[in-house]
Amino acid sequence: MPQTTEAKQKLREICRVAARVFYEKGYDGASMQDIAEAVGLTKAGLYHHVRSKDRLLFEIMNYGMDILDEAVLQKVKDIADPREKLRQSIIGHIDLIVRARDMEITVILHENRSLRGVLRKKINARKKAYIQYLEGLISQVQEQAGGKKFISPRLAAFATLGMINWLYQWYHQEGAVKQEELTQAYLDFFFRGLLGTA
Amino acid sequence: MPQTTEAKQKLREICRVAARVFYEKGYDGASMQDIAEAVGLTKAGLYHHVRSKDRLLFEIMNYGMDILDEAVLQKVKDIADPREKLRQSIIGHIDLIVRARDMEITVILHENRSLRGVLRKKINARKKAYIQYLEGLISQVQEQAGGKKFISPRLAAFATLGMINWLYQWYHQEGAVKQEELTQAYLDFFFRGLLGTA
Repeated sequence: MPQTTEAKQKLREICRVAARVFYEKGYDGASMQDIAEAVGLTKAGLYHHVRSKDRLLFEIMNYGMDILDEAVLQKVKDIADPREKLRQSIIGHIDLIVRARDMEITVILHENRSLRGVLRKKINARKKAYIQYLEGLISQVQEQAGGKKFISPRLAAFATLGMINWLYQWYHQEGAVKQEELTQAYLDFFFRGLLGTA
Repeated sequence: MPQTTEAKQKLREICRVAARVFYEKGYDGASMQDIAEAVGLTKAGLYHHVRSKDRLLFEIMNYGMDILDEAVLQKVKDIADPREKLRQSIIGHIDLIVRARDMEITVILHENRSLRGVLRKKINARKKAYIQYLEGLISQVQEQAGGKKFISPRLAAFATLGMINWLYQWYHQEGAVKQEELTQAYLDFFFRGLLGTA
């Protein structure tokens, strides 16, 4: 069904709160009752917005992919130069991961064992599209640099995804390494790894 | 208490089976009864080996760090050359992550939200020691290469950990990329990122 802006905002709010509850209690440990209480809805009210726990998990993951699109794809869509586009994509993706606000959502996005069937396929298709976007961009950057194919675009895409997505395991914005320093170091490391020069 | 070899072997078997059950049902979704059944013990028999579900999760994570030590530190301990030692450490760590046999254990090792208090501190201390080992080695490699400090050893250590530990999200041994190809590409990418040349 087509969603109104208001319904979409409400669903996003539910997703953010539910992500926190799942993060704290585990997907299997959290009940729809727990989530309804945390959102400030009755259980019936919650079911009005989202028809099952499975579906809620899917909506959280889908929201996670939406904010990835917003943090990366939307921001770089008008950049023509492949290298600058890749650079800004990495900057946007790092920013998303280290942003404390969305931490629970990005964590849940990558623990997708609980999702099954068609919903799992939908999320995996979105993840795959993002990887293919990175791969394509990396391939263009290699060509721009005179055809330097030190590494396959696919492996380079997964290497950078690993570096970035792993940040949630160890990086804290209040720690010794500032986000700007981290981002610059990772960008240089990535481009040296890809092309031999930063 | 000092463990006999037999008790240690039994505990490891319990850890492997329990990791699979936690992986399938979630930590909160799996009961000690589920785990006892999967191991082929009575609940009382299981409690004889491990005194609580918390403790069991700790034992699984501790086992995960043990096999990391075995796959990496034990294998490289007699290598004197820092660069070769780092190279072999990366090879060993990749091998551990892509080995299907221990997948559930390595996944659980990195989802350590469910562990609390002193047990969590113990696991984090082992993880920290491993990162410091990598940092130290990376620093030596930089000095050996004439003091090329393109990136801080700490950030380089986390970058490589991210690249490697993220493999469980996407890499399949039966897929198009063979382990040898993956390992070589990642080694070259890492050393280029670190030193500008592979």
